[in-house]
Amino acid sequence: MSAAMSFDLKGWNKQQLDTVEQALSDWVANPVHAPDPAGLGDAMRYAVLDGGKRLRPLLALAACEAVGGNAQAALRAACSVELIHAYSLVHDDMPCMDNDMLRRGKPTVHVKFGEAQALLAGDAIQALAFELLTPVDGSVDTTTQAQLCRMLAQAAGGQGMAGGQAIDLASVGMQLDSNQLHEMHRLKTGALLKASVLMGAHCGQPSAAALAALDEYGQVIGLAFQVVDDILDVTADSATLGKTAGKDAAGGKPTFVSLMGLEASKDYARQLLARALTSLEAVELTRPQGAAALRALADMLVNRQF
Amino acid sequence: MSAAMSFDLKGWNKQQLDTVEQALSDWVANPVHAPDPAGLGDAMRYAVLDGGKRLRPLLALAACEAVGGNAQAALRAACSVELIHAYSLVHDDMPCMDNDMLRRGKPTVHVKFGEAQALLAGDAIQALAFELLTPVDGSVDTTTQAQLCRMLAQAAGGQGMAGGQAIDLASVGMQLDSNQLHEMHRLKTGALLKASVLMGAHCGQPSAAALAALDEYGQVIGLAFQVVDDILDVTADSATLGKTAGKDAAGGKPTFVSLMGLEASKDYARQLLARALTSLEAVELTRPQGAAALRALADMLVNRQF
Repeated sequence: MSAAMSFDLKGWNKQQLDTVEQALSDWVANPVHAPDPAGLGDAMRYAVLDGGKRLRPLLALAACEAVGGNAQAALRAACSVELIHAYSLVHDDMPCMDNDMLRRGKPTVHVKFGEAQALLAGDAIQALAFELLTPVDGSVDTTTQAQLCRMLAQAAGGQGMAGGQAIDLASVGMQLDSNQLHEMHRLKTGALLKASVLMGAHCGQPSAAALAALDEYGQVIGLAFQVVDDILDVTADSATLGKTAGKDAAGGKPTFVSLMGLEASKDYARQLLARALTSLEAVELTRPQGAAALRALADMLVNRQF
Repeated sequence: MSAAMSFDLKGWNKQQLDTVEQALSDWVANPVHAPDPAGLGDAMRYAVLDGGKRLRPLLALAACEAVGGNAQAALRAACSVELIHAYSLVHDDMPCMDNDMLRRGKPTVHVKFGEAQALLAGDAIQALAFELLTPVDGSVDTTTQAQLCRMLAQAAGGQGMAGGQAIDLASVGMQLDSNQLHEMHRLKTGALLKASVLMGAHCGQPSAAALAALDEYGQVIGLAFQVVDDILDVTADSATLGKTAGKDAAGGKPTFVSLMGLEASKDYARQLLARALTSLEAVELTRPQGAAALRALADMLVNRQF
């Protein structure tokens, strides 16, 4: 039995998720702390709270735990990556992008609050991500604050998530080769997933070897996540996904399944999981519980519903 | 003759503007440094370069100069506030918001590049603003980096610019009273203008008195800017403005002119200018040239074209 198997992911997950949900509820447009300008805060909270697997926060918290870092810094890093993810979904769902009506089983933000409010809520959520990383309460040293801001900005921007989305837009109806498809996903989903891991790690003082291992881990699970997403788009139903299934295939979006077929995509996902687990074996991480959580998260991410 | 009159604003302006334009051109999606993902960089550069009065950067640079701060930090602060301003215009012009076709005398970003690309370009420009504030070249100490990120995030977010835009959206066709109109503009345009001044000041080590004076100055010119904008909306033509004139009045947006009338609005703008100049007199600023630039900028801002 591997360490990943013996580790109680469920218990760890539950505890971390409770912490993240509480922090997000405290920090995102909380009307107790400041007035809600014209319902913008309502839209922000609707977009962020009460939904999502919180995969990115869990990765950040596990990576911090694995290197024995500052847990308060990691909680802020965890929430900041989730905010970037959440705002990107709000904008992605808008009519000028994917025009999706359903997200996490609920009406999308623009359906519920109108397009203009959705646009502004997304913009404000992105700004909030950086505000969370720069507290004045002394819980995070300013060198770490600056580094986390830099990593988040790079992962979210034109050479990260937004750049990947632009490639995605431009490639609808096109046949991408394997290199192009990998590049698109390295930016579109990979950059923020990898940043989640590395931002968590930078809440501590990881050795160069630990950092290299976590870098490799973050890169591989970022890719694995997208391969599995493409598989689920054709194998799962909308109720299970909480979003419209079959959308990518119907929309003529290039996917791993359209490039290599369903069975080969499943094999590829399993290979990536093995690589992610191997990358963590190459190095001594400070705390076994964090390393076990990273292994278990990789396993969960690949073995979702197929 | 006042110091503001004897100071060569034109010469100072020209030199600072050249520096800002060069920095923006170097730093915004420069294809020399990184590949352009699917034209996103083109859209980002179109949105940012070659246009605008660069009022916010000039305020940041003047405030830094006034307190004898780190000029390299101030140049990054100056560009970061301009990026937030530029992204907000891109999103503001979109069909779901103001639906404007013309900006700075050119087609708006969504007209030229499509709505989806405009949305992404705005998002990427916001992220870039924070990336600019967190360089690894040692030019800005990390405590300053963290502080500038915090100030920018707060000025841009739900309790700043985005919040003001939400109030603006909600108030179309409504009669706002003076307090409500002031609150809307304090957030919508005032927060970022004030942040421009204070971020520039925080590139140095201002005394508490200097900081208080600059805070007052920033707040008053932020308000004056909006009053003048409302005046120009009814008195100037589109060619002069570089954007559609008469739009606010036609769109039923509450303005200072609709609230207090044209002549009273002009008087109010002049009073605010006097207040801004007085606030700077109350304190000894380190460098006379910076203080003179701040006075001249306030004068220019109010005495634009009426």
